[in-house]
Amino acid sequence: MPNRYDVADVLDGFLEMDEAAFVDFLKKNFPFRYGVGIGDDTSVVKTAGSFQLITKDILIEDVHFRLEDFTLEELALKSLAVNLSDIAAMGGVPQYFYLGLGFPRRLSMDKTVDFLQGMAKGCKQWNVDLAGGDLSASPMMFISITVIGEAQKPIYRHGAQTGDLIGITGITGESAIGLKLLLEEGIKTGYFVEKHKNVNPDLQKGPVLAHYVNSMIDLSDGLSIDLNRILTASGKGARVDYESIPATPQIKEICKTKGWSEYDCVLAGGEDYVLLFTLSKENEQKMRIEHPGMEYYIIGEIDDNPGQLRVESSGKTIHTPSLGYDHFKK
Amino acid sequence: MPNRYDVADVLDGFLEMDEAAFVDFLKKNFPFRYGVGIGDDTSVVKTAGSFQLITKDILIEDVHFRLEDFTLEELALKSLAVNLSDIAAMGGVPQYFYLGLGFPRRLSMDKTVDFLQGMAKGCKQWNVDLAGGDLSASPMMFISITVIGEAQKPIYRHGAQTGDLIGITGITGESAIGLKLLLEEGIKTGYFVEKHKNVNPDLQKGPVLAHYVNSMIDLSDGLSIDLNRILTASGKGARVDYESIPATPQIKEICKTKGWSEYDCVLAGGEDYVLLFTLSKENEQKMRIEHPGMEYYIIGEIDDNPGQLRVESSGKTIHTPSLGYDHFKK
Repeated sequence: MPNRYDVADVLDGFLEMDEAAFVDFLKKNFPFRYGVGIGDDTSVVKTAGSFQLITKDILIEDVHFRLEDFTLEELALKSLAVNLSDIAAMGGVPQYFYLGLGFPRRLSMDKTVDFLQGMAKGCKQWNVDLAGGDLSASPMMFISITVIGEAQKPIYRHGAQTGDLIGITGITGESAIGLKLLLEEGIKTGYFVEKHKNVNPDLQKGPVLAHYVNSMIDLSDGLSIDLNRILTASGKGARVDYESIPATPQIKEICKTKGWSEYDCVLAGGEDYVLLFTLSKENEQKMRIEHPGMEYYIIGEIDDNPGQLRVESSGKTIHTPSLGYDHFKK
Repeated sequence: MPNRYDVADVLDGFLEMDEAAFVDFLKKNFPFRYGVGIGDDTSVVKTAGSFQLITKDILIEDVHFRLEDFTLEELALKSLAVNLSDIAAMGGVPQYFYLGLGFPRRLSMDKTVDFLQGMAKGCKQWNVDLAGGDLSASPMMFISITVIGEAQKPIYRHGAQTGDLIGITGITGESAIGLKLLLEEGIKTGYFVEKHKNVNPDLQKGPVLAHYVNSMIDLSDGLSIDLNRILTASGKGARVDYESIPATPQIKEICKTKGWSEYDCVLAGGEDYVLLFTLSKENEQKMRIEHPGMEYYIIGEIDDNPGQLRVESSGKTIHTPSLGYDHFKK
């Protein structure tokens, strides 16, 4: 989950390298003997008959969320959802999770119960179990979740092939617009704000897509930055056709009204938690026939220009002020 | 790991129930379909041929540690060690772990590297791999570790039998004395302070003991409170002979000099990270023969008085001011 709030203040210059370099540094210093470790949405360890997926994400008060914007139940659900999304992005099914909770004493006991009720609701809604964890009083709230899942065939970021079509399972930009409304205008309700607060991980589509796709990631930091992660991992480039991205009339309208860059919201907004994938044209046809009702959008194609992402609108390349959020650099 | 620093300020009244009630509340609200979930040192899930153990512990700046007392390398090693100890306490072998790190921007980049170097050292020393995780800038430092391990035969807290001998694998009280020296006298070095800062999880003994013992736990919150956890889980009582507990002359001396209660340090100190176990007299003889060099001390016996822990010295029952630290009640 991207840092959203204290970004300028807290993160600028925090690490003197970008995320890719940091991941390389970690991979070099921490070899993993059990399977695939650092560098994808989850780690992957072969077990008898399948693969075990594990992912861990932390959410910190005033870095990833503000307590004033969420009920404790909403916060519990969102914390769980963003972690489950990582399992879906590997083509897996989440099974259970561990909760590390730092809880400020300034919040009342009721709030702890609200939070745990949110977790219980999430368990039911997404068919996962809480398996353990640790609770401590803490000066500020943080939530650290480790999810265990399973996949028959894990899908990595590094599998994109030249000629692959690029697909997304839903609409991008709505969460970013909701966040802008929250932060810039103090608006606490409405369609976009709800989209920002209530994350629906694509748990059904992940394992279905796994049968057809060559690479996959969930959109947490923005379409362009997350697509770039696939390109970097796969040593490929891509052309994206902006008109193919499902920006709704509502998105276009609010951006126009508020004077916000629509490109920025849609391409670089972040926290969309839809899946982005690449697959061959043959498999796309096959999937369309075998799963006729499944919502997804083909937005571009993988090519052979390593590291180059070209977004075109009406034949012209778009330059956006920001191409998505990097945790380490502003 | 027990909260040590802001205890009075942060924790008093934090939850309006004690830990046992809270664990019961969680167990009731979060059923676990994959094996044994909340309530022991780790969760346990059956896999092909063995059992997977998973544990998660969080350490928070100014709650569990003060940055002024540790180098970042020491802190990394201790954070990892206390989590590995939980795997040993189940009779398992740790394999790999996930690191969630909230890192304050006020610390320099060098400190992040120091911390990661400590982790790399721990990986080597304890033969475990870093498999993934999440790093974020944070107003205060916290460390959230999830360890994955394996056991052929997991040992739970609930297996103690009437007539079992009670054993511990090492000395208790030294870490608590070190902490008192740190907090009350600002003493930063020396034998006891080192004992507090450098935790050596009993990774060798855990899997060996698993062949003989009926119940096991690691001593994190103090001998008496952790033994009480075994008694509660097993529905048993115990008699402990204080003279059998290996309090060294150095412990006795420093307690006398400083005017500290030796009983309190030895019985309720906390952060000893030695293993406490119960086993039948026959198995104890067998273990003594089959592992002649292994250090451990028999300190008492399990009896049939549910929930009653009696510590005797020279035939008299000891009453200590505190019988160990409870995370939830002062």
